Amino acid sequence: RKPYRIAVIAGDGIGKEVVPEGLRVLEMAAKKHGVAVHFDQFDFASWDYYEKHGEMMPEDWKEKIGKHDAIYFGAVGWPAKIPDHISLWGSLIKFRREFDQYVNLRPVRLMPGVPSPLANRKPGDIDFWVVRENTEGEYSSVGGRMFPGTEREFVIQETIMTRTGVDRILKFAFDLAQSRPKKHLTSATKSNGISITMPYWDERVEAMAKAYPKVKWDKYHIDILTANFVLHPDWFDVVVGSNLFGDILSDLGPACTGTIGIAPSGNINPEGNFPSVFEPVHGSAPDIAGQGIANPIGMIWSGAMMLEHLGEKPAAAAIVTAIERTLGERTLRTRDLGGNADTTACGKAVAEMV
Amino acid sequence: RKPYRIAVIAGDGIGKEVVPEGLRVLEMAAKKHGVAVHFDQFDFASWDYYEKHGEMMPEDWKEKIGKHDAIYFGAVGWPAKIPDHISLWGSLIKFRREFDQYVNLRPVRLMPGVPSPLANRKPGDIDFWVVRENTEGEYSSVGGRMFPGTEREFVIQETIMTRTGVDRILKFAFDLAQSRPKKHLTSATKSNGISITMPYWDERVEAMAKAYPKVKWDKYHIDILTANFVLHPDWFDVVVGSNLFGDILSDLGPACTGTIGIAPSGNINPEGNFPSVFEPVHGSAPDIAGQGIANPIGMIWSGAMMLEHLGEKPAAAAIVTAIERTLGERTLRTRDLGGNADTTACGKAVAEMV
Ligand SMILES: CC(C)[C@H](C(=O)O)[C@@H](O)C(=O)O
Ligand SMILES: CC(C)[C@H](C(=O)O)[C@@H](O)C(=O)O
Repeated sequence: RKPYRIAVIAGDGIGKEVVPEGLRVLEMAAKKHGVAVHFDQFDFASWDYYEKHGEMMPEDWKEKIGKHDAIYFGAVGWPAKIPDHISLWGSLIKFRREFDQYVNLRPVRLMPGVPSPLANRKPGDIDFWVVRENTEGEYSSVGGRMFPGTEREFVIQETIMTRTGVDRILKFAFDLAQSRPKKHLTSATKSNGISITMPYWDERVEAMAKAYPKVKWDKYHIDILTANFVLHPDWFDVVVGSNLFGDILSDLGPACTGTIGIAPSGNINPEGNFPSVFEPVHGSAPDIAGQGIANPIGMIWSGAMMLEHLGEKPAAAAIVTAIERTLGERTLRTRDLGGNADTTACGKAVAEMV
Repeated sequence: RKPYRIAVIAGDGIGKEVVPEGLRVLEMAAKKHGVAVHFDQFDFASWDYYEKHGEMMPEDWKEKIGKHDAIYFGAVGWPAKIPDHISLWGSLIKFRREFDQYVNLRPVRLMPGVPSPLANRKPGDIDFWVVRENTEGEYSSVGGRMFPGTEREFVIQETIMTRTGVDRILKFAFDLAQSRPKKHLTSATKSNGISITMPYWDERVEAMAKAYPKVKWDKYHIDILTANFVLHPDWFDVVVGSNLFGDILSDLGPACTGTIGIAPSGNINPEGNFPSVFEPVHGSAPDIAGQGIANPIGMIWSGAMMLEHLGEKPAAAAIVTAIERTLGERTLRTRDLGGNADTTACGKAVAEMV
């Protein structure tokens, strides 16, 4: 077949440092498994681009990257230089909405060689997926402010959940649960306190569950669910949540497995009408940017998720195995994991293992 | 002075089992420290009451308990028998709103003898307060459903933050931070994703901070904040959040310190216009109710918070010390802590230490 065309956007901060390592590993895996890939690099969706052009992306950004097979994305945002509502909403969140990437998918897996902040947990104990709704819900941006600047001032913001939006994410999550050995789905709710949208979410979960008789499902309120991530991370298999709840759980989960530096994510349009974005969970990390010490594993693992999404399972699996071996041997680890390897050394180590 | 008048509501499930132990300890502490207390017991705000009367509380509930100095509350809710929106909204949440208990205050403290699920944390490492807005925000209940039952169906729900509501909780939190040795306040936000209400929250934090030059403050987005509760619980001193974020953090925090069974809370009306409610963080726990095995420490510790609120500091401190000693000696512990003591034995042990 024709080579996959991947749009590469390094973005800001450590995004620029980890992307080359991700590409190094991707190229190696592609070569070994006979996968043809072509990478196109883009400089927009970054502070540098904004500084030059006064906007985050060119007007024709959709033409530029909308026909690619996937987008390989580093990180965006540099709050000290450019407000989040311009940088994030002008790139990352725009991709999610305009490319209809309604699934945000993140693995929570305790890897060999990575010390868990939780006592007495070993690799194998923690291994689940967080499935997050990625386009609506609490991130609606509908609302406003009344009586500004006065004592009577107030703000309102809508959480909006549509039948389409809720059902499609639940379907994705139930499908995923059904494909796994445990076939267990957990829904994050808060219907005891958030009295309109969350009972609706529960109602749709119940309706969807009827189509998946083989999947065991349960639900927890988000407060006790976060507690259970810490107390009983072995309970979970597939956890599905709204935009906000999924966001929280997919940072908390990776934290429970040791470091956010190794966690990958996919912003997926399952129908393939638009390219999906694969990016590490960590952000641009201005505090350590420019030092070459960032952990590239989150970026590299995101590459594996991208290959998996493209249907290239053996190449994807090879990368995950290489990550596990590199981490497990404990010889080449970045600072966040207690080692002193730099970004490039870590990337090369994984590439050699592929 | 005249005896304090405390309204006691045991409620549902294990509420009925832990309240007697809480009272046992309160009576002992009051006696030893010369504090006169009078307890009035009420049977409403429970499934039993609802079964008999078809409503959660009598019409004149405000007259019955509105003039008490405080309310000592067990737990309410039994989802299998009565929907949350009736039981919780008909009692607990009603108290919070109608008695203007705008502060929900919960300590997160690793106690001696309690194994933390976090690796390598000892008592003293984790010791902070979560201050939660308790009347507005994400729990507004304003909104509705359109095109019900069709494919076009959607629900909307407002998050509402008022200047009054936000400023008063921030003032409480800054005052608390200023009174503590570390003088450090952390604000929970999500202004990068929730683009109207959360930037407003940030704005008010910044404005309030100007009045507290001695308080060092910072803010984290809720996703990374939950991660930091697990990775760096020693970073925090006073953490303030909206109704939802505070709810999440005040379950996650106690989980990080070992068990939700020992965590207390106050629903406080700081001006004293209405009685405040003191209750354990755990709920009615139908799964273990009736067995006499519930941990009464959360209820007992809530009694200490109540005495503190009433200004009876020595009696309050005596209870906290007795809890620490009982837990520290590891001889009398309930099952959730790896022991086999029952609820009464544990309550008696603490009472003897007071
Ligand atoms: C029972 C529920 C409505 C309540 C809340 O979310 O406020 C509880 O979780 C709490 O924290 O007191
Ligand atoms: C940067 C921010 C808007 C974003 C989100 O909340 O979606 C991030 O936390 C994420 O999880 O991708």
